[in-house]
Amino acid sequence: MHYINELREGDTIAEIYLCKSKQNLKTKAGKTYFSMLLQDKTGILDAKIWDLSNAIENFEAMDFIHVEGQLTSFQGSLQLNVRRVRMAQEGEYNAADYMPASKRDINEMFGEVISFIDSLENPYLKKLAQSFFVEDKEFVKQFQRHSAAKSVHHSFMGGLLEHTLGVMKFCDFMASNYQMINRDILLVAALFHDIGKLEEISEFPENDYTNDGQLLGHIYLGAELLAQRIRTIPNFPAKLSSQLRHCILAHHGELEYGSPKKPATLEALALTFADNADAKLETMIEAIEAGDEKNEWVGYNRFFESNICRSVK
Amino acid sequence: MHYINELREGDTIAEIYLCKSKQNLKTKAGKTYFSMLLQDKTGILDAKIWDLSNAIENFEAMDFIHVEGQLTSFQGSLQLNVRRVRMAQEGEYNAADYMPASKRDINEMFGEVISFIDSLENPYLKKLAQSFFVEDKEFVKQFQRHSAAKSVHHSFMGGLLEHTLGVMKFCDFMASNYQMINRDILLVAALFHDIGKLEEISEFPENDYTNDGQLLGHIYLGAELLAQRIRTIPNFPAKLSSQLRHCILAHHGELEYGSPKKPATLEALALTFADNADAKLETMIEAIEAGDEKNEWVGYNRFFESNICRSVK
Amino acid sequence: MHYINELREGDTIAEIYLCKSKQNLKTKAGKTYFSMLLQDKTGILDAKIWDLSNAIENFEAMDFIHVEGQLTSFQGSLQLNVRRVRMAQEGEYNAADYMPASKRDINEMFGEVISFIDSLENPYLKKLAQSFFVEDKEFVKQFQRHSAAKSVHHSFMGGLLEHTLGVMKFCDFMASNYQMINRDILLVAALFHDIGKLEEISEFPENDYTNDGQLLGHIYLGAELLAQRIRTIPNFPAKLSSQLRHCILAHHGELEYGSPKKPATLEALALTFADNADAKLETMIEAIEAGDEKNEWVGYNRFFESNICRSVK
Amino acid sequence: MHYINELREGDTIAEIYLCKSKQNLKTKAGKTYFSMLLQDKTGILDAKIWDLSNAIENFEAMDFIHVEGQLTSFQGSLQLNVRRVRMAQEGEYNAADYMPASKRDINEMFGEVISFIDSLENPYLKKLAQSFFVEDKEFVKQFQRHSAAKSVHHSFMGGLLEHTLGVMKFCDFMASNYQMINRDILLVAALFHDIGKLEEISEFPENDYTNDGQLLGHIYLGAELLAQRIRTIPNFPAKLSSQLRHCILAHHGELEYGSPKKPATLEALALTFADNADAKLETMIEAIEAGDEKNEWVGYNRFFESNICRSVK
Amino acid sequence: MHYINELREGDTIAEIYLCKSKQNLKTKAGKTYFSMLLQDKTGILDAKIWDLSNAIENFEAMDFIHVEGQLTSFQGSLQLNVRRVRMAQEGEYNAADYMPASKRDINEMFGEVISFIDSLENPYLKKLAQSFFVEDKEFVKQFQRHSAAKSVHHSFMGGLLEHTLGVMKFCDFMASNYQMINRDILLVAALFHDIGKLEEISEFPENDYTNDGQLLGHIYLGAELLAQRIRTIPNFPAKLSSQLRHCILAHHGELEYGSPKKPATLEALALTFADNADAKLETMIEAIEAGDEKNEWVGYNRFFESNICRSVK
Amino acid sequence: MHYINELREGDTIAEIYLCKSKQNLKTKAGKTYFSMLLQDKTGILDAKIWDLSNAIENFEAMDFIHVEGQLTSFQGSLQLNVRRVRMAQEGEYNAADYMPASKRDINEMFGEVISFIDSLENPYLKKLAQSFFVEDKEFVKQFQRHSAAKSVHHSFMGGLLEHTLGVMKFCDFMASNYQMINRDILLVAALFHDIGKLEEISEFPENDYTNDGQLLGHIYLGAELLAQRIRTIPNFPAKLSSQLRHCILAHHGELEYGSPKKPATLEALALTFADNADAKLETMIEAIEAGDEKNEWVGYNRFFESNICRSVK
Repeated sequence: MHYINELREGDTIAEIYLCKSKQNLKTKAGKTYFSMLLQDKTGILDAKIWDLSNAIENFEAMDFIHVEGQLTSFQGSLQLNVRRVRMAQEGEYNAADYMPASKRDINEMFGEVISFIDSLENPYLKKLAQSFFVEDKEFVKQFQRHSAAKSVHHSFMGGLLEHTLGVMKFCDFMASNYQMINRDILLVAALFHDIGKLEEISEFPENDYTNDGQLLGHIYLGAELLAQRIRTIPNFPAKLSSQLRHCILAHHGELEYGSPKKPATLEALALTFADNADAKLETMIEAIEAGDEKNEWVGYNRFFESNICRSVK
Repeated sequence: MHYINELREGDTIAEIYLCKSKQNLKTKAGKTYFSMLLQDKTGILDAKIWDLSNAIENFEAMDFIHVEGQLTSFQGSLQLNVRRVRMAQEGEYNAADYMPASKRDINEMFGEVISFIDSLENPYLKKLAQSFFVEDKEFVKQFQRHSAAKSVHHSFMGGLLEHTLGVMKFCDFMASNYQMINRDILLVAALFHDIGKLEEISEFPENDYTNDGQLLGHIYLGAELLAQRIRTIPNFPAKLSSQLRHCILAHHGELEYGSPKKPATLEALALTFADNADAKLETMIEAIEAGDEKNEWVGYNRFFESNICRSVK
Repeated sequence: MHYINELREGDTIAEIYLCKSKQNLKTKAGKTYFSMLLQDKTGILDAKIWDLSNAIENFEAMDFIHVEGQLTSFQGSLQLNVRRVRMAQEGEYNAADYMPASKRDINEMFGEVISFIDSLENPYLKKLAQSFFVEDKEFVKQFQRHSAAKSVHHSFMGGLLEHTLGVMKFCDFMASNYQMINRDILLVAALFHDIGKLEEISEFPENDYTNDGQLLGHIYLGAELLAQRIRTIPNFPAKLSSQLRHCILAHHGELEYGSPKKPATLEALALTFADNADAKLETMIEAIEAGDEKNEWVGYNRFFESNICRSVK
Repeated sequence: MHYINELREGDTIAEIYLCKSKQNLKTKAGKTYFSMLLQDKTGILDAKIWDLSNAIENFEAMDFIHVEGQLTSFQGSLQLNVRRVRMAQEGEYNAADYMPASKRDINEMFGEVISFIDSLENPYLKKLAQSFFVEDKEFVKQFQRHSAAKSVHHSFMGGLLEHTLGVMKFCDFMASNYQMINRDILLVAALFHDIGKLEEISEFPENDYTNDGQLLGHIYLGAELLAQRIRTIPNFPAKLSSQLRHCILAHHGELEYGSPKKPATLEALALTFADNADAKLETMIEAIEAGDEKNEWVGYNRFFESNICRSVK
Repeated sequence: MHYINELREGDTIAEIYLCKSKQNLKTKAGKTYFSMLLQDKTGILDAKIWDLSNAIENFEAMDFIHVEGQLTSFQGSLQLNVRRVRMAQEGEYNAADYMPASKRDINEMFGEVISFIDSLENPYLKKLAQSFFVEDKEFVKQFQRHSAAKSVHHSFMGGLLEHTLGVMKFCDFMASNYQMINRDILLVAALFHDIGKLEEISEFPENDYTNDGQLLGHIYLGAELLAQRIRTIPNFPAKLSSQLRHCILAHHGELEYGSPKKPATLEALALTFADNADAKLETMIEAIEAGDEKNEWVGYNRFFESNICRSVK
Repeated sequence: MHYINELREGDTIAEIYLCKSKQNLKTKAGKTYFSMLLQDKTGILDAKIWDLSNAIENFEAMDFIHVEGQLTSFQGSLQLNVRRVRMAQEGEYNAADYMPASKRDINEMFGEVISFIDSLENPYLKKLAQSFFVEDKEFVKQFQRHSAAKSVHHSFMGGLLEHTLGVMKFCDFMASNYQMINRDILLVAALFHDIGKLEEISEFPENDYTNDGQLLGHIYLGAELLAQRIRTIPNFPAKLSSQLRHCILAHHGELEYGSPKKPATLEALALTFADNADAKLETMIEAIEAGDEKNEWVGYNRFFESNICRSVK
């Protein structure tokens, strides 16, 4: 397969890509053409179909398509001039080639999450966790594939799982070092803290904000999802439910980061540290990995408001 | 009845008050005594029972009690020295004398709210509004009595109703002047915007933050309450539900004021103006009414970051 | 007439436009040419005169000019290559075609403003209002044509009138719902709140910040203008003058938005809500109208710090 | 004379003080009494008249009164128990003993200001300065006595003059070191930068915010005052007037400090440094002088957000 | 021993306390007396010596003194009326009774720190750590006794050690979970991150800000201390030195928290999380422990901008 | 010499420039080429070497090179197409032509600095100043050539000297007008306030942030440098050392501007005004000088958050 990050001006290709978006436009001279973004797991490619007269089958955004054409350069960027295009058949391609994915093994990470759930002592919290992560197969499938973000950090398949596990490990560490922490609440809060992202961000390959994501946000959606499920568990203690949902609502730590409540319990506070640390460390790690290995300084990063420097070995 | 704001040092009284709080304390010399806050609709009075030996019946905070004693002055404040105390009997007092209340007629205000509901055209929104305000008698009773705040503005019985009606009128005005606004969404959002306060603040006479109020807040609680009820209405359009709950979540206008989302629709935006204007105008009006009528300037107000000045007539 | 928003690459035109700006430049090779921006009510067009040798009459920025030439595309934007140009004669064009204008009827809106003035009871405030809006014909003419902004919202002819009327309606609504408000002060403050924009922004077709606008701003200029006029009205009460000018100074609500004083009176406070609501609702309405009707989400808006969503019907 | 800062519990006095405020109050037992604040240049004294029956002549706040009585201690503060009181006669007291005053000689400082005015070259600016500081005797008298603040820094008689001179010296220094600065504009802007304080703060002995001070503020008032006077000077250049008033409006440097405009000219920018430096240096100097000389650290200062330390000699 | 938190009004005592401060004052009637603050590990006691005539030996602040007297109540607080006082002799008291101390064993905690040092692989960093924590006996003694703050969190003997160890554990956890982290740099940065507090805060029993602490702060002082020591280690790599000191300078994470640099390396970033989490968790734990066990909510905490709630068990 | 700001499209040149940067890149078609930035004191020029086959001698960034080629225009910017290139020989060029420099005479300015040092009375401070500015020839040479910034203000050779002198003059002025200021401390603090820039920014022609500059910053580096030198001066008073270094640390005035401490002494406070005023006045002066002389308004300036206006003459 010709990965997008290896293409060069002048190359002629016949290859399958994911059509991420497709627009029907007009040139300034009034002629109709298609503008598309093609994607594989290594990047994004701008493509145009100037001549719609022949060999252009029907297809839509989010379809896998087989394209033939030549690479040109336009205003400093590569562009694919498509001569022929058709829908790709199942079996012609491997969907995994078209989406960025976690470097870590999904099953192994999920096993670690399950181990944490197995270690819970509070029966209500354990039942709540199992009702999603053990009994709800559809949920498990979706959770394992989801990203933790549209961009920024963990924006790849398995990203939500990887981030959730990272946060749980932090929480487990804190629970073992600060005696007053209620480990069960903290671990379950970590487990569910970003669960609302399943509704906030659509599944791969789209991986974009949904209607509900933009209007309601993953913080509210996650708390609401838990409230609904908790109602189905008989005798779930009311205070436990409130404190758990409080952790979800407060996990961004500050109102201006979208949490409608500041942390008021030790577990809510601890969760903010775990989430923040895992997210920012991963963000800096991704920035350093993306930099040119020859340069000690990888460039100014707006998120950290600083130029970022590699560590001495 | 001897109202608290009319009591003077040296007065001897035998009167019924609401016991807002009660503490069992020790003097520095080690002697046990009771310290209480008594309340009627005109104010709060500090009271002590120094001698617990006789004529002290059992009672708890939030009970109505009949007290006998004398008013003394301690460090510049009035204090009631209680000699005898007993539970008051139903019929001896009128609960309304003990709680601050809206100056406006509850039924009249509620009638105006119902008229707004009657004017709705969207059948789903109308059904949702009616399911609370027409069909749910228990809800109606609670809503009519509730305050809109522990303190600040509208912190009296009927305050939630008065504020809700004030916001609805603003919204009705805007809907008639800006054609693009969807009047039904805006009116229903106004109707429910502070509905979470029923769970955030306990009923009178307590009128204090609940556990859920502090951990979850009225913004989340209100949106959640609507989500639950909407699920019981067949075919309620999903987008309508999302946009309505978005209005609830965004009605504080800014993340730092506790809204997890900024307004993204015209109705959500309009609601923030109506809520903000009604709340702040009422706050300034209450401040001016509380000031000494002889003074043009009523004093520095932290909320408005300014000294407040009466208007020329 | 060929409106600018309908021109296409390759078109040859002979048309009259307003010359918004004109610069005498040199190419990198040292050759002199003219660069101009041409405007009509539908948009802006970049134009160049490369050959200055023949048929180029004298003209200046803000003149109406008749141009002949061909449309080309340069770095993704349309550009007019001018071959001939001359001043347009009065009668050849209709100035109204060259400036964006309110969709609403100017006279009708002005009539509504006059009705509000007629309803005033305080004789001094009424006289002040009439001295501008009834007796000063030159002022009336200028006020009716002015915009309320260089860009953002109401940046079209009649925009100042439309915004002023919108704010007055809000204020009239509030005065009728909150008894303590002095309706006359509030309405007159609304009437004059942006009067300084007549000096801050130049008239159409220029519609740009003036020297005084940049150095002094419409808030100061408006208050100063009123102070001057009030001195000509015998016995105008000093406190009334101060409270009225306070409303003008405080109408942006916060120091960081350019008001040198925070609102200290009920009318000053109410005015901030009316101004803010009318301005922001109009801003969002203009953003939604400018969006592609097919898309539910019209794109991220920096002003609202959110993607904007159309309401469900 | 017995200065207030030398009075002790138990002293019996018969002395003249300025009555800064006077209130007619009731004890908790319902008895009427007077509560007053007495002032001299060394401090403030709380005084009460409990028995209104005899020897209590009529007097008002801001009168000089002769009081007889005894000093007691109430809740840790000194209080004067007044037995007799009468209006003081002119000649019995020296008003200067009752108001804090600049340590520097008023005439000498004023002479320095006049020298700066004499050094101006621009005829319009010189005329403007002279119209106030040379021709307007009433203005001169008021300016020389005024304070620059109710509290904070330069809050004494002559304080406005001392601060104005301090700022002018800074400006003169900058004009001689940065060639591009227009010295005449900068010096005149410095001369008038706080002129609005004559209307914002009442004269001694009251020295409190006026109605206009609170509603309009010295920044607007000062610019308005100049605008009025400039209109009386024939042919005063419009741009000069605008740039001068711009300096006044912008002299707090930031919108959030009450300037409706940010500095846009070199003189406006330079003025902010001079004003800021003179005000803050004087504030710290006053704080150090007020501290106990034995302590190297004079205590936390909220204004500077730091504990303040004396310099090593 | 009679601990201060057990004393009651009316008690007569003869006991040894630490004299934290001592002032020579005058009553309002002009009589000289001493005002002192006495301290033991349970609290602070106000004490006065009214009669200086007999049996008052010389002593200074920070001396241990033997006092005889009676406890009275003044304006709601306990006060010791001292009749006799003398210097306490060494042997009469145990200094540890007079200073708050860590609940954890100092030697055990220090042993854990040494183990971390032993695990370092980089020879330069190991040598640097050992030069302080192994070879410098005076430093070790001082470090073990020091607090981590004047108040807030870890403000007790051993507090600096306890906090440093807590931060190191966090860092060790992160180094094992995020491969790109250089464990040696991170652990040594954690070890030294608050080392400047040895100069910023004086030793117990004083435990107050020093001159250098207030003027220079522990962030600069710590980095400077390392720079000096590093110069004594031959061939210490320059980049290692810079990155290590960068971690010290940046460990408050934000400029507004006193760090002159934002984190630019992965280790600097990780250190901010460890420091922040250990400090805030300990702060909330101390707040909950200080609250009344009967109350679920322990009261509003300004630091967390929230009422704090105990976790459900 | 052909200065860069005089080059035009189509020119053919053979000239010596400083090679500021050099990159080895590949075209989209895979061909290798060099991309360079060439610099002289008038500007920067983009240059490419497409054909690496002949006449291309070895050279590196920061070398002076002799280039032959032709100027073309690419996307609106000039680009030099290099045909031949070789290292320039010493003697062929004058380094001063290639670096922006102060308009003022270096020796004259340095003489003024020395005069200030000569005027110091405190022997320790004088010795400290002389140890750098008189005895350390290498330091003097470096100091005279250094810039005060990479860009913004004083970013030219001699800029550090010019800015330091400007700040000293301000400080001298303040010391003579505010008696309480310790002139020696203030002048020496001014002298050394930006001394850390010698380590933060590399020497011309590079003039870029160093590793230490980015990780540690000039504030820390300057204070550290002084601490080291002070240790070599016998009996240098500790408090003097602390207050002097405090001035260095606090000279940005606010924590969010990178000072780890707020000013706590009069000298530290005065220094912030001097540094701020000289820096910002110079910034605005440079902006006005860079503007088109024909325009009264020189354009919006992000730093001042305002359009900048020339003063009337």
